[in-house]
Amino acid sequence: MSMEQRRVLVIGIGAGDPDQLTLAAVKAMRRTDIFFVVGKGPDKASLTDLRHRMIEEHAQGPYRVVEVEDPSRDRRPMGRTDYADAVQDWRARRGDIFEGLLRDEMKAGETGAFLVWGDPSLYDSTLGILADIEERGSVSAAVEVVPGISSVSTLAARHCIPLNQVGRPVHITPARRLGDVSGSDDGDIVVMLDAHESFADVEGDDVWIYWGAYLGTPDELLVAGPLREVSDRIRQLRSEARSRHGWIMDTYLLRTVEQKAK
Amino acid sequence: MSMEQRRVLVIGIGAGDPDQLTLAAVKAMRRTDIFFVVGKGPDKASLTDLRHRMIEEHAQGPYRVVEVEDPSRDRRPMGRTDYADAVQDWRARRGDIFEGLLRDEMKAGETGAFLVWGDPSLYDSTLGILADIEERGSVSAAVEVVPGISSVSTLAARHCIPLNQVGRPVHITPARRLGDVSGSDDGDIVVMLDAHESFADVEGDDVWIYWGAYLGTPDELLVAGPLREVSDRIRQLRSEARSRHGWIMDTYLLRTVEQKAK
Repeated sequence: MSMEQRRVLVIGIGAGDPDQLTLAAVKAMRRTDIFFVVGKGPDKASLTDLRHRMIEEHAQGPYRVVEVEDPSRDRRPMGRTDYADAVQDWRARRGDIFEGLLRDEMKAGETGAFLVWGDPSLYDSTLGILADIEERGSVSAAVEVVPGISSVSTLAARHCIPLNQVGRPVHITPARRLGDVSGSDDGDIVVMLDAHESFADVEGDDVWIYWGAYLGTPDELLVAGPLREVSDRIRQLRSEARSRHGWIMDTYLLRTVEQKAK
Repeated sequence: MSMEQRRVLVIGIGAGDPDQLTLAAVKAMRRTDIFFVVGKGPDKASLTDLRHRMIEEHAQGPYRVVEVEDPSRDRRPMGRTDYADAVQDWRARRGDIFEGLLRDEMKAGETGAFLVWGDPSLYDSTLGILADIEERGSVSAAVEVVPGISSVSTLAARHCIPLNQVGRPVHITPARRLGDVSGSDDGDIVVMLDAHESFADVEGDDVWIYWGAYLGTPDELLVAGPLREVSDRIRQLRSEARSRHGWIMDTYLLRTVEQKAK
């Protein structure tokens, strides 16, 4: 590796609690020359603010912060092919923005950092986009990943449960693929990115849900219980919380209780 | 909650790199009165040593450390029912030991802590055993979980890859259930606890493996490539490393490359 190469750190910063930063993440922030903060628009301004506060607390000068707006994404309900196209289009536009940041905002030999919610390895596009940019070839950077605490880990921790039952698999899936995954074996299922309350369509008297929103933040909401009994309560909480905050991020575990290992 | 209740912290300490401790884990260690260190026998003494060093670095006195030996477990190859029985038996004996620790080694009002490798939510028995003890009723404790960086997150980070492909599920499974999980859909598969090199039985020219052992430690080993091409190399590395260290802990991701999202 040339001394003059650009270095890009992809730092997992946890689910929302600033204390979920690892010591490695703090050390990585201290050696960062330039932080890239990707805003999600006014709705999620509190998330952007939290990253700025983390930078102020842990970064060591001199450093710069560049904030860019995330490209908008078509989030209407759609089929799998259209969905893949919409994501591909959004990723390409995000790639253009990230490529500009790497090429124009940082100099060779500098270290830039993306602060990623949760863990960069789970349902986050940053690593894929950086790989796309490397392939385009207009700018090159050595990428280093600092793993973070995911919302999935946080969900399990707050409910004091393991994600898996003894000796069994656990499946993590976007809500739109829940139908493919559920019932394929005796594993538990963690559902991410559920904008359409797919849990309401899950059948079975023996299914429990462990649900959490705004995990790790002061606004955290938790509900656990038999899905049939608590489903309406979760929908009501989601609706109220989304009105109050303007956005919601939640995740949940579905577990068939007769299989529950005691 | 009574002021006089026992408090038990289950603290995820990461995959092996002491810098994977979160700020929350460090704060939790500072308020711990008594640390329970469960040894895995002489083979894995280096893992026990690492926990002692973490305690020395982060705990704030006065504190006590109690080390106990993990009960031995029947690890011969066996069918699913026998396996479940063997795990159940081992858990019950571990439960007896943990119950004794909570009842006899700590006083009401004190805070005890178990330091758990990786993340307590993933293939770790501590939370299940504490739930068993609560059910037995002879001693009660308020349990709090501090999530940690799992070996799965660390594997993905070291290979600079996401665990999931865009919009697809990811499955995490013990090796003995790999046959049930593989091929059920287009998701990637993370395999844990593979003592018998099950990857060698996976078919398909288009399958890539991202493998890692001793993740996060100075002994870390990483191999990535087409499974057919690198399978023998991984087996050789495993064999050499196990001879050298007396034990091995490894995990890997299987990904079908024609599905690879670029």
